[in-house]
Amino acid sequence: MGSRQHNRRGFLKSGAALAGLALGGVQPASAQTQALEEPSKKLKEIIAYGDRSRFVTSMRVPVAERMSPDDFGLTFHVLTPLQDSVGIITPSSLFYTATHRGAFVPDIDPKEHRLMIHGMVDRPLVFTLDELKRLPYVSRIHFVECLGNRAQARHKTVQETHGLTSCAEWTGVPLSLLLKEAGVQNGASWIVAEGAEEVKGASSIPLGKALDDCLVCYGMNGEPLRPQQGFPLRLMVPGFEGIYQIKYLRRIKVVDRYYMTYDDYGHINPDSKVAALTHQIGPKSVITFPSGGQQLSGPGFYEISGLAWSGAGAIRGVEISTDGGQSWKDAELRSPAFPVAHTRFGFHWNWDGKECVLMSRCTDELGTRQPTRAEVGKYWKDPVDRVRVRGADNSVQPWKVAADGSVHNGLA
Amino acid sequence: MGSRQHNRRGFLKSGAALAGLALGGVQPASAQTQALEEPSKKLKEIIAYGDRSRFVTSMRVPVAERMSPDDFGLTFHVLTPLQDSVGIITPSSLFYTATHRGAFVPDIDPKEHRLMIHGMVDRPLVFTLDELKRLPYVSRIHFVECLGNRAQARHKTVQETHGLTSCAEWTGVPLSLLLKEAGVQNGASWIVAEGAEEVKGASSIPLGKALDDCLVCYGMNGEPLRPQQGFPLRLMVPGFEGIYQIKYLRRIKVVDRYYMTYDDYGHINPDSKVAALTHQIGPKSVITFPSGGQQLSGPGFYEISGLAWSGAGAIRGVEISTDGGQSWKDAELRSPAFPVAHTRFGFHWNWDGKECVLMSRCTDELGTRQPTRAEVGKYWKDPVDRVRVRGADNSVQPWKVAADGSVHNGLA
Repeated sequence: MGSRQHNRRGFLKSGAALAGLALGGVQPASAQTQALEEPSKKLKEIIAYGDRSRFVTSMRVPVAERMSPDDFGLTFHVLTPLQDSVGIITPSSLFYTATHRGAFVPDIDPKEHRLMIHGMVDRPLVFTLDELKRLPYVSRIHFVECLGNRAQARHKTVQETHGLTSCAEWTGVPLSLLLKEAGVQNGASWIVAEGAEEVKGASSIPLGKALDDCLVCYGMNGEPLRPQQGFPLRLMVPGFEGIYQIKYLRRIKVVDRYYMTYDDYGHINPDSKVAALTHQIGPKSVITFPSGGQQLSGPGFYEISGLAWSGAGAIRGVEISTDGGQSWKDAELRSPAFPVAHTRFGFHWNWDGKECVLMSRCTDELGTRQPTRAEVGKYWKDPVDRVRVRGADNSVQPWKVAADGSVHNGLA
Repeated sequence: MGSRQHNRRGFLKSGAALAGLALGGVQPASAQTQALEEPSKKLKEIIAYGDRSRFVTSMRVPVAERMSPDDFGLTFHVLTPLQDSVGIITPSSLFYTATHRGAFVPDIDPKEHRLMIHGMVDRPLVFTLDELKRLPYVSRIHFVECLGNRAQARHKTVQETHGLTSCAEWTGVPLSLLLKEAGVQNGASWIVAEGAEEVKGASSIPLGKALDDCLVCYGMNGEPLRPQQGFPLRLMVPGFEGIYQIKYLRRIKVVDRYYMTYDDYGHINPDSKVAALTHQIGPKSVITFPSGGQQLSGPGFYEISGLAWSGAGAIRGVEISTDGGQSWKDAELRSPAFPVAHTRFGFHWNWDGKECVLMSRCTDELGTRQPTRAEVGKYWKDPVDRVRVRGADNSVQPWKVAADGSVHNGLA
């Protein structure tokens, strides 16, 4: 016992500050140990809520290429760094964001927040957060994608071409449960969901979808929604484009027709086929490695890695071309393939060191295959035309690998 | 055009600072817009890497109740706040941690890190991180749990009773692939895996397990491993207790016998039945709401929520008792039930306002049912006896709801 005590004292003498850190402010249970110094504020913070390594610097980057329809500010889109992604979960801190009014995020006290369900219902309802959490809930993994997520020739990286999609575990109450409790009246056919942010972003959603798989979510990746993702409540409309996933959800009105809303820039289109395309995303895929701006170190084996997703359901398969679309081989799914979720694929590739073009294309559970850019048609030849064309671009993304191993956007 | 320009100017004049924030430092593409002020450093940081709401304050708390076997410092265990958890993913910032030597976390430059595979192999191998990432990988959702995760009568909350387990999506290379590449020699029967931290924590793992489902992981919840979780490399040994999931993995030696290591406090046991129990976790479950320290607002409907997991595979079912174990009813699984992963369950309960005891018990895919405390036997009657008893405690956790709605540890 004497020598052990001696050892500890020697350690404390030579490293008292470090030992203080080690204890994290908690007094050891053993009566043999001595009271040690308090840890630093920073270390206390990291013990309570951890941080990433200083060697990990992957970050989102904003884009600011489209004016807001109200002309008072900018829509503000922040791209997730897909080139660094692994697996299918997007860390909440790196989840893409899209807002109507710049970087302003409502600072909502969840105790004050309410969700109202009204309109063509027998029993209008108002819920607090605590009341919603007393109801049955589910947790599901789903992607979200902005309609504006489309590759253009001027984009250099996969963050720029495809960074407006992310995937998370969402926890919330089925909207169908709330609507049944309210009692939807005969003749109702749509809902209008509205957020609490300054501009009151809202979307009209078919009642059939609302009663199918929509969720009123309070949880994301195991903790409350992040402010940039709609804290404290967000409507998940699985497979529909991002703008339908109403953040800061405060009101759901049951109605008998499509209502025009603040969010309708882009959704009103004289071509009904084009307009219909704006609801549901995919099937779509993109290679995240190797992708634009990355560098291969020389000929040899590489793991081609990427993500595939579809608003119509689960991904059934992914194919890879290493010759610019002339031939295709099956990739392997490297993660579970959930309905309406990012699915990780991989393909083991032996690069011969010659210039080549890499592509991926996926097929979803309905058998729909992601089209090549040529198949998508003429709309996408003019990438800056956003007024005429509102259909989501789910075409194949080519990456050109040069003989020196540098990787470039194949659209350029 | 004139009035739109006027509007924007009016906005900029009255809110230049805010508009500067909105742009996030990126110049708008439109030539019509003006150069605006730079956003604050803090806002730039949040755009690049988001943070949670100031109203969300859930945090880990450290425990320090066991001396380190080397007697130079304390093992340092930090408990995840299960009472606030939703879904099955634990946010990486709230993932439980357990270290050998206090809060010291190696500050490893991933470019300098190496993994060596040697011993009874035909071709000893050394990998850089970049080399490992060129190999086929998989992403899987698995829990990790410390053997020390056991409820005691003095614990007040579920964070204290069960906070040494968490669940994440892990991405890495199958260890079997690396071992096949190295060429395991005849006669080999174990591996010893070793970390790079100061004390070189190591564990002996049966070769059969190493060739089955172990992963050499570099990714966690969509980004690189966190330092507290082993950045840049961690061995996942699905279903085995936490100490086998070697952090800062730097060496795997293929050997022909069990080797004693630094990590072997607690694993050497004269009772072979007890010793065998220390490898594999569960089946186990716990109610996270309502749990100790929480408060029900009065009689009425509540959603009993909790987590179930098993080292043997997927959870097949969970039962709830609201009468202290006299009767049991089926709960519903509220999330996918992955092999060796936390699985979320729920049970809609109408509380009559009388004192009662809530319990959960689960059954895994092998048909093994979580035992009650009485069934576990005499070992667990003495909660402070950690020398004799090393088997993981997977017994049922009772929560007592008092007539005033307050919730307490039923073991007290």
